[in-house]
Amino acid sequence: MPVETIAWKNSRIRYIDQTLLPGRVKFVDCASVPKLWRAIKRLEIRGAPAIGIAGALGAALAANNSKAKDSRALIRDLRRDIKYLASSRPTAVNLFWALAKMECAAEENVYKPVAAIKKLLLNEALKILADDKRSCRTMARYGAGLVAGGDTILTHCNAGGLATADYGTALGVLFESKRLGKRIKVYADETRPLLQGARLTAWELLHEGIDTTLICDNMAASLMAKGKVDKIFVGADRIAANGDAANKIGTYSLAVLAKHHGVPFYVVAPVSTFDLNLKTGRDIPIEERDANEVRTVMGKMVAPKNVKVYNPAFDVTPNELITAIVTEKGIFRAPYARSLKRLVKRL
Amino acid sequence: MPVETIAWKNSRIRYIDQTLLPGRVKFVDCASVPKLWRAIKRLEIRGAPAIGIAGALGAALAANNSKAKDSRALIRDLRRDIKYLASSRPTAVNLFWALAKMECAAEENVYKPVAAIKKLLLNEALKILADDKRSCRTMARYGAGLVAGGDTILTHCNAGGLATADYGTALGVLFESKRLGKRIKVYADETRPLLQGARLTAWELLHEGIDTTLICDNMAASLMAKGKVDKIFVGADRIAANGDAANKIGTYSLAVLAKHHGVPFYVVAPVSTFDLNLKTGRDIPIEERDANEVRTVMGKMVAPKNVKVYNPAFDVTPNELITAIVTEKGIFRAPYARSLKRLVKRL
Repeated sequence: MPVETIAWKNSRIRYIDQTLLPGRVKFVDCASVPKLWRAIKRLEIRGAPAIGIAGALGAALAANNSKAKDSRALIRDLRRDIKYLASSRPTAVNLFWALAKMECAAEENVYKPVAAIKKLLLNEALKILADDKRSCRTMARYGAGLVAGGDTILTHCNAGGLATADYGTALGVLFESKRLGKRIKVYADETRPLLQGARLTAWELLHEGIDTTLICDNMAASLMAKGKVDKIFVGADRIAANGDAANKIGTYSLAVLAKHHGVPFYVVAPVSTFDLNLKTGRDIPIEERDANEVRTVMGKMVAPKNVKVYNPAFDVTPNELITAIVTEKGIFRAPYARSLKRLVKRL
Repeated sequence: MPVETIAWKNSRIRYIDQTLLPGRVKFVDCASVPKLWRAIKRLEIRGAPAIGIAGALGAALAANNSKAKDSRALIRDLRRDIKYLASSRPTAVNLFWALAKMECAAEENVYKPVAAIKKLLLNEALKILADDKRSCRTMARYGAGLVAGGDTILTHCNAGGLATADYGTALGVLFESKRLGKRIKVYADETRPLLQGARLTAWELLHEGIDTTLICDNMAASLMAKGKVDKIFVGADRIAANGDAANKIGTYSLAVLAKHHGVPFYVVAPVSTFDLNLKTGRDIPIEERDANEVRTVMGKMVAPKNVKVYNPAFDVTPNELITAIVTEKGIFRAPYARSLKRLVKRL
């Protein structure tokens, strides 16, 4: 793994500020919940699993910072901060999943003294982090079984170490394939507007010595028409009970193009990304972000200042365009409404 | 029309440097063929029809600048400079079409004195420019017949006034629709890597008071899935005898997405864009441009310096994805191999 994306150090959350990559690798020590909220909002920390971990560590930090004298007051403080952290970004369900786990852990132990609750909350957060590491490795092993030597693989956005506590979801599959000695080539979509593919994915892949070519998002179709893409692997931010998957804007576009060109399209995500309360992807809330993310690139204005902008951060890929979903509990295929019921049984 | 893109003024070519838009409107007076070559190469002048006009005016400039004492020497100089100008960019056929017209005009008149040949070459170039203006207006009228009041239209790259001598090909259709009182909304793809959609198309559309929303290229599919795109209009850089059309990279991607979502996909181009010598789009040479166009945006590095890049400037949309091709000689539909034979008869 190139870098430790997020960790607990000296009672603070240490994270790498991903907005500065690849130009600068800057670690930030975060000691306050509002600062963490801003880091998630601004995408200093990003990637669905990493946001979940940030939420868990944030709840531990919130408890740690609380001046409450008794456990009920502590839980009141915790609930307030959890609600606040949950307002940072709406789409990746891992955040709400992790925050709910933390809230339950506190509530189940309300009869314990304040110091004990603080300690067990930290342990719970560190367990979520450790579980994510393990999940990455397991998903990578399952996913690598879908990769053949000589494959050229296209990926979108960043589903790598920077999006998780370990070496990623979709990129984990590629790292594991490489480790197993499979010769692969990767095309990375740059992923406008915030260029996570150019800035983060290209950086991670090169760091691991993988043959990487950067393209603009609008070039993927042309590569597929030339038969230059064997498989597509992407991550996800929320997956509904029918297998519809929200992921970074542009993913749905790739899935349609993949279908047209007969290219297998794989989603790689841990079970914390599933929201089985939602019947379909239509119910997934899609974050719309600031217009200036599109009007500017790295702070430079590239369009008329007064032009209107549509800037959804995610889109939803319907299940019928997904060849398989790779999780740490196995690989799931259509019909997803049925296969994902098996997933529930394994949870 | 917002601006005079290219013109002949005081024995020089006056053009607007499109690399500086929308931040700065700078007119350049170009008195030398090498300077013009560089302006085309660097996309200071761009858009297939505008490149054709630049080539024609460039040939007139070449003749004007020649020190030749007799007409054979003048034509030798002219041929050398025409060959040089033809090496600036390989895909838009309008350049070769215009240069061939200029060369023929000189050769047909080799028996005339030097001054007369220089004069008739300038007249020929100005006729190509005037014809393009007329063609724009005629295409716009034909195309506007395909637009209904209330339509929301998606366009890619810049096929507007800046790409022609008048108000454009695809954008001309939109300007004419507006003039006719049809209420339209337009989504403009930003068009990475060089952002002609963000920088040029958004600027032109706003200038004409058209309701315009800028999106990243990877957002178009998501809009189509929501039923928010009624029609797509794009330009072209070269069209083969079977109707396959090369246009800015990302156009093919839109065409596949349009087919998947049942959205009509129209190409608007003057007959100077047709290369009926080519049976199919497979024979169209596709320019690959410098890797740093993708690694950087407006001069800022956005990716690891050492990452490989694939940067084709164009892609080819196969005829079966094109609903109709709008030209100044009428609207052509599938089967194109047959309908375009009618076009030949009208030339």
